[in-house]
Amino acid sequence: MAGSSFGTHFKVTTWGESHGKGIGSVVDGCPAGVPLCEADIQTFLDRRKPGQSKFSTARKESDAVEILSGVFEGKTTGTPISLIVRNEDQRSRDYGEIASYYRPGHADYSFDEKYGFRDYRGGGRSSGRETIGRVAGGAVAAKALDMLGISFLTYARAIGPATISCSPGDLLAKDPADVREQIMSNPLYMPDDVAAERAQKFLTECMEQKNSAGGVIECIITGMPAGIGEPVFDKLDANLAKAIFSIGAVKGFEIGDGFASAASTGLCNNDSFEMRGGKVSVSTNHAGGVLGGVSSGAPIIFRAAVKPTPSIAAPQKTVSKSGKDIEISIHGRHDPVIVPRAVVVVESMAALTVLDLMMENMGARMESLQAFYHRPAR
Amino acid sequence: MAGSSFGTHFKVTTWGESHGKGIGSVVDGCPAGVPLCEADIQTFLDRRKPGQSKFSTARKESDAVEILSGVFEGKTTGTPISLIVRNEDQRSRDYGEIASYYRPGHADYSFDEKYGFRDYRGGGRSSGRETIGRVAGGAVAAKALDMLGISFLTYARAIGPATISCSPGDLLAKDPADVREQIMSNPLYMPDDVAAERAQKFLTECMEQKNSAGGVIECIITGMPAGIGEPVFDKLDANLAKAIFSIGAVKGFEIGDGFASAASTGLCNNDSFEMRGGKVSVSTNHAGGVLGGVSSGAPIIFRAAVKPTPSIAAPQKTVSKSGKDIEISIHGRHDPVIVPRAVVVVESMAALTVLDLMMENMGARMESLQAFYHRPAR
Amino acid sequence: MAGSSFGTHFKVTTWGESHGKGIGSVVDGCPAGVPLCEADIQTFLDRRKPGQSKFSTARKESDAVEILSGVFEGKTTGTPISLIVRNEDQRSRDYGEIASYYRPGHADYSFDEKYGFRDYRGGGRSSGRETIGRVAGGAVAAKALDMLGISFLTYARAIGPATISCSPGDLLAKDPADVREQIMSNPLYMPDDVAAERAQKFLTECMEQKNSAGGVIECIITGMPAGIGEPVFDKLDANLAKAIFSIGAVKGFEIGDGFASAASTGLCNNDSFEMRGGKVSVSTNHAGGVLGGVSSGAPIIFRAAVKPTPSIAAPQKTVSKSGKDIEISIHGRHDPVIVPRAVVVVESMAALTVLDLMMENMGARMESLQAFYHRPAR
Amino acid sequence: MAGSSFGTHFKVTTWGESHGKGIGSVVDGCPAGVPLCEADIQTFLDRRKPGQSKFSTARKESDAVEILSGVFEGKTTGTPISLIVRNEDQRSRDYGEIASYYRPGHADYSFDEKYGFRDYRGGGRSSGRETIGRVAGGAVAAKALDMLGISFLTYARAIGPATISCSPGDLLAKDPADVREQIMSNPLYMPDDVAAERAQKFLTECMEQKNSAGGVIECIITGMPAGIGEPVFDKLDANLAKAIFSIGAVKGFEIGDGFASAASTGLCNNDSFEMRGGKVSVSTNHAGGVLGGVSSGAPIIFRAAVKPTPSIAAPQKTVSKSGKDIEISIHGRHDPVIVPRAVVVVESMAALTVLDLMMENMGARMESLQAFYHRPAR
Repeated sequence: MAGSSFGTHFKVTTWGESHGKGIGSVVDGCPAGVPLCEADIQTFLDRRKPGQSKFSTARKESDAVEILSGVFEGKTTGTPISLIVRNEDQRSRDYGEIASYYRPGHADYSFDEKYGFRDYRGGGRSSGRETIGRVAGGAVAAKALDMLGISFLTYARAIGPATISCSPGDLLAKDPADVREQIMSNPLYMPDDVAAERAQKFLTECMEQKNSAGGVIECIITGMPAGIGEPVFDKLDANLAKAIFSIGAVKGFEIGDGFASAASTGLCNNDSFEMRGGKVSVSTNHAGGVLGGVSSGAPIIFRAAVKPTPSIAAPQKTVSKSGKDIEISIHGRHDPVIVPRAVVVVESMAALTVLDLMMENMGARMESLQAFYHRPAR
Repeated sequence: MAGSSFGTHFKVTTWGESHGKGIGSVVDGCPAGVPLCEADIQTFLDRRKPGQSKFSTARKESDAVEILSGVFEGKTTGTPISLIVRNEDQRSRDYGEIASYYRPGHADYSFDEKYGFRDYRGGGRSSGRETIGRVAGGAVAAKALDMLGISFLTYARAIGPATISCSPGDLLAKDPADVREQIMSNPLYMPDDVAAERAQKFLTECMEQKNSAGGVIECIITGMPAGIGEPVFDKLDANLAKAIFSIGAVKGFEIGDGFASAASTGLCNNDSFEMRGGKVSVSTNHAGGVLGGVSSGAPIIFRAAVKPTPSIAAPQKTVSKSGKDIEISIHGRHDPVIVPRAVVVVESMAALTVLDLMMENMGARMESLQAFYHRPAR
Repeated sequence: MAGSSFGTHFKVTTWGESHGKGIGSVVDGCPAGVPLCEADIQTFLDRRKPGQSKFSTARKESDAVEILSGVFEGKTTGTPISLIVRNEDQRSRDYGEIASYYRPGHADYSFDEKYGFRDYRGGGRSSGRETIGRVAGGAVAAKALDMLGISFLTYARAIGPATISCSPGDLLAKDPADVREQIMSNPLYMPDDVAAERAQKFLTECMEQKNSAGGVIECIITGMPAGIGEPVFDKLDANLAKAIFSIGAVKGFEIGDGFASAASTGLCNNDSFEMRGGKVSVSTNHAGGVLGGVSSGAPIIFRAAVKPTPSIAAPQKTVSKSGKDIEISIHGRHDPVIVPRAVVVVESMAALTVLDLMMENMGARMESLQAFYHRPAR
Repeated sequence: MAGSSFGTHFKVTTWGESHGKGIGSVVDGCPAGVPLCEADIQTFLDRRKPGQSKFSTARKESDAVEILSGVFEGKTTGTPISLIVRNEDQRSRDYGEIASYYRPGHADYSFDEKYGFRDYRGGGRSSGRETIGRVAGGAVAAKALDMLGISFLTYARAIGPATISCSPGDLLAKDPADVREQIMSNPLYMPDDVAAERAQKFLTECMEQKNSAGGVIECIITGMPAGIGEPVFDKLDANLAKAIFSIGAVKGFEIGDGFASAASTGLCNNDSFEMRGGKVSVSTNHAGGVLGGVSSGAPIIFRAAVKPTPSIAAPQKTVSKSGKDIEISIHGRHDPVIVPRAVVVVESMAALTVLDLMMENMGARMESLQAFYHRPAR
């Protein structure tokens, strides 16, 4: 198990610590023939790069990616793609303090219990920087998915109490290019200017109070063919749930109407089928595009709850490694909210999940094997 | 991938359709020396058996389990444990009708798209009966976990609008035996008599209106050691999310405060550490027992949103296999709510997840390998 | 890991002990639409059934297979196929003796060391009966491979000192139906009547001396497309090596010229390419059809060395469970040679390996994904 | 599957091409607390480094390894260890020639068939340089195994017709330090000076004839506890077979007496048990230390057949990419024999296999889980 790999066919293995020499990932199983260059990946990494607004850490990290293998003459070769981002701007301050106690809301204590000791510099492996490897891998997956007509709309639905007023259905009714532009037009990646403004005001207050905020990220996947997902344990929604929950600060995941459907009734919650343009379609999408764990062809819609940044400057009680009750305040350059930078991480994990299951699905019918290997069906 | 196996060390592979010859699972990787007999498993299966109240289907299925392998002289041998439940009471009515259209909220359409055809009898592989294999496997895991001091409290938190008034903390403050007794005292497995009564009233109304209800299942795991879960993709909460989301009707999953934490702040949401009885403890448990994907030693608390039963007798619009818009009403013996019978399924999946990660964790430190293989640490 | 599953896409999980209630396997990931009935599988099982000649154990086991799931209206549905063979003819003699000592050449001691105890009845899980689950699964794989134009010729190359005089090339030059008929015409499955006669004479001597024999099994796979196998760890020959070595009595595996190639030179051992009928072909096949772990389109040729049956009636020294040096002689009904009955086991494991890698290979090129999902290549 | 990862608990993922930016691997699942520095790994890499004698390619590659993650304060942290070797000395000569035809004995043709195109520079991913990632990972595994008392003796048993005269038993009777010194004393890693001299003479002839040689590598693993290996598909010998066969030029694998046992009889081939120093031991070791796929505590002994280097300067027939019969001669700097440099690759793959199964074995008994988690056995 080991735990640093994700996917079966399209498999990403990440490595690296916050203050080690670098962060990276190995993408194994990428089909040969996907046009790929570093700029394709950098675009994704830049969306999670810090220092882009006053609402993200002031750390300066260029996070420039280098492709070390697996690409030849501008195309993937089918062999592992090794991606590396060298770490920079690791302040040489004394980490001895962090080493000596357990920060609330962080993995310090649970890592020490598991491994006996930990790389305490900047959170080590449990740092948010670990997601660089995922985003780099996710960018490759997204490139391949784009060639299959599959697109993502991912944005902040809520930050603290500020929630966007539009539903996924509202956004799907617009031109995707316009929605993407609006998302990118504010530093919080919210497709609603009013909510974005309220969120910024709330975040400013949090920062003044040495406090932090959480929020909700929403993702819409369009262009999904029907039939993706394996019926029992590798359901599309189950694999998405794991993928999204494997992101550090995520505390909740729901698909379609999610928790709201628990309070609904069968009559309201069932999505009727209807013929539309000669195609079987759903008239509503309470299910979020998944039936029995398998995509129905409707857009996939899911949400992730992100907890408030645990690193806050306000004083907190905790215990020292030597077992004493103490009070600390965490200084340093921390994001007052993780949500905006996590948007692309959510999108990356979704891309990895979907592509992996689409590859799996190619073996679902014997007639597909016969067609692939040029054997007449009988 | 294939999709019918769960777990790496303690691995369950399920098989079977609603109206085939039977349902079962193979449990591979169970440690040798766990006392096990059919009654241990039957107790779990009986909790999901239909026909126990007017709120579950009137189908009569004894669901009697047979152990076919892996147990010798009353103990597991370390080799695969094959478990089988023969199907009974499959009414020989004409299934032709179901075969000819796509039931809303069911996997009929997505399965047809995936495989080209489907075993339509009673939902085939996408039937809730598939969970029998999970529960049988989960019962074995729970037996082993009990030997490690780990227990589960699983119950319905909400059914439709009826929600229990006690928090996990309230229940943890009571004698677990009393809580379990209260849960078992009503057919809805709610640890709150007032809520249970309201829920029953609501369900009766639903049934009168040929409608159905959903709800929320909550699970508390106590006795968890710290250090369980792998830091990146195989986080304890990520694997739980997948496990629970792989259950048919689940549409949401959250751990600790879940979606509520998204609206909280760092100061409120962080759980302070404190020394208690010489042990590092958390003063609150907003995190639900997991930090950085690894257990902290606090109780694990999570919730699953379960959608309303999609099979309802009220008329619904849908399309036929031949592509015509039609209206149907689904007759037969269906549960007006899945939640009570799904409680033990949730517990089983949680048990499988936790035991698997506890086995994985045994290799986390070199000193453990040295102790196991009787080599002096150096 | 757990160890009772084989394959990634087409995955077989076996279970069962020699003297438990039965033996079986679950085949997960079989493509939907393969015509399948019990007779397809029984044909394979009958080839390993005991009691067919004086050179196999006199035990009477009908080994009748039952399909429990995964087949509907005569075709596989894409869901797990559960296969079971109930055990019969388990003599109720006292196994206490076997329980009290370690048989040389058997897994008694190593199992006790691993698990602390063992199901000693007839070898338990380490019995040759475990292969029933593999053969049942292999029969399903072979059915699918036949639909892809892939066939197997598997036979005994040598039993003790008696070796067939024809090379794989000689056999490939004949009509496959004739070769198959010749193989089936003698109880040792040798495609050479002279060698078969010599082998029978040798076996008769062995039996008189309460001794046993080993041999070599050879397998030729024809109709293989080029491109099957993954370049690094999941090479076609590496996966075959594991598959074949996982059969109990196998002590050696070689592909193409195998160990002979180690004493050859580059000039002799390299297979030149040449155009034949407009197709790239090899002029010789020292490599056995695999280059860099990937099939070249030439027939796959491999051999397995099978050790002599360890259960012999002649007196042997060993130790008792209580740690005393003792002398034993093993009575009961044992095969004087395992080779003939292992022929179909080798073929089954090869079929499982090849089909799994053929499914994996479908995702090797992006243009294949685009064709599958009906997206124009760009 | 994807194919570039090996192992379940201790998992190595390799990446890199011969003429790309570098070669490397990610080691995931290494227990925390193993002292590790670059010199530990460099020692292994230096054993496969070219240019150390006239019998290996004249290419100059320092193959200096850099640890990028997973080590803190001189010890492994339990998180992924990323290892990289930058490529050097890639001659900027025209590879256009190799691109235009298929070299006999190489993966050129099978890769083209699989992926549609290939990185032809120096063999790309199918180059022997790919093994750098394995050796780097194997060095880490060997370090951990050394802490568990497990050692390796790996050497060339034969090169062309020159075979060493000592048996594994002879070598085991000597002081391991002396054997290791003798192995390292000649450039062919043979523990027999006479055979080494004959081999060098044979190789000199081969080089004069623009030809190449193969050979046999033998490996002895000492200090193995009993009980390692999983009974059915993940047998110790099956996993070793796959591990060794995944090395490019390997064409045969045998354990213990291997193919010779096929011609032996039960009486000769069975290893009697006997009490020795109060311990159950085997009086002979025809089995090579494995019974029923599980280690018996005796030394593990296996051999690999390595084919002659396919790149030879003598003229050969082949076909061009455009489908014409042509004649080529391969120039460049190629090893006349791969065996000596492959010795450490075999040892590395064996180390990876053994450690992975030793970690798996820790969960074989329930009493071990209880001891680990400090629960009283009942």
